[in-house]
Amino acid sequence: MVDCIFCKIINGDIPSYKVYEDEEVLAFLDINPVALGHTLVIPKEHYETVFDAQEESFGKLSAKVAKVAKKINNALDCDGINILQNNGKASGQVIFHVHFHLIPRKEDDGVLTFPNVIGEKVNFEEIAKKISKA
Amino acid sequence: MVDCIFCKIINGDIPSYKVYEDEEVLAFLDINPVALGHTLVIPKEHYETVFDAQEESFGKLSAKVAKVAKKINNALDCDGINILQNNGKASGQVIFHVHFHLIPRKEDDGVLTFPNVIGEKVNFEEIAKKISKA
Repeated sequence: MVDCIFCKIINGDIPSYKVYEDEEVLAFLDINPVALGHTLVIPKEHYETVFDAQEESFGKLSAKVAKVAKKINNALDCDGINILQNNGKASGQVIFHVHFHLIPRKEDDGVLTFPNVIGEKVNFEEIAKKISKA
Repeated sequence: MVDCIFCKIINGDIPSYKVYEDEEVLAFLDINPVALGHTLVIPKEHYETVFDAQEESFGKLSAKVAKVAKKINNALDCDGINILQNNGKASGQVIFHVHFHLIPRKEDDGVLTFPNVIGEKVNFEEIAKKISKA
């Protein structure tokens, strides 16, 4: 897409630090890393979010995410990796070309803390029904 | 696996609020939700992390993550969804059966904040080389 930064990176109009590339996928270092080795994995096909994705395309992209996660784990001295994929502005998505963040972690680095459990009473049965019927 | 809580949920030994199930995958509400509709998607096959995963299996699992994300988005009044998959204790993983968190978000809910960018000087070229060669 003309005005998409990630499409420009794919086309080579904007340079990037590539770590993996094949016909369908590009992986490169996030230029604003939250941890050393913070990597983005994107499809070469432009779509905005998981909601716009063909399930099969999203699956193929994720298979490559697994490949790149293993590469990062082998290359860097990390103790774990968060795989994070944000959909919609409210979720923290900034670039509207679907992407996975791969964030290498060290013990007690405090980089990403899991959110607090909600305290309010939840009607699990009602919510489960709503989602399963959708 | 005998002592795995998620395997027990799959086998029906522990009850859960199911939202999707097929031969390979189970999706159910997280009993300690960080947001309304917080859902877990797991493979029926037991493996601990993305590092132990067959790429193809991880891809198939992720295709179902996309399916469930769309169901949540259709069912609930949310403005976005974070998809988070933690690998290793340092990343926040607690149950060592691979799983995706699907966290519905609302504007300005503050549920999950993206980590701060690291300030130190990063040698992007060196790190990209290390990962791409691994």
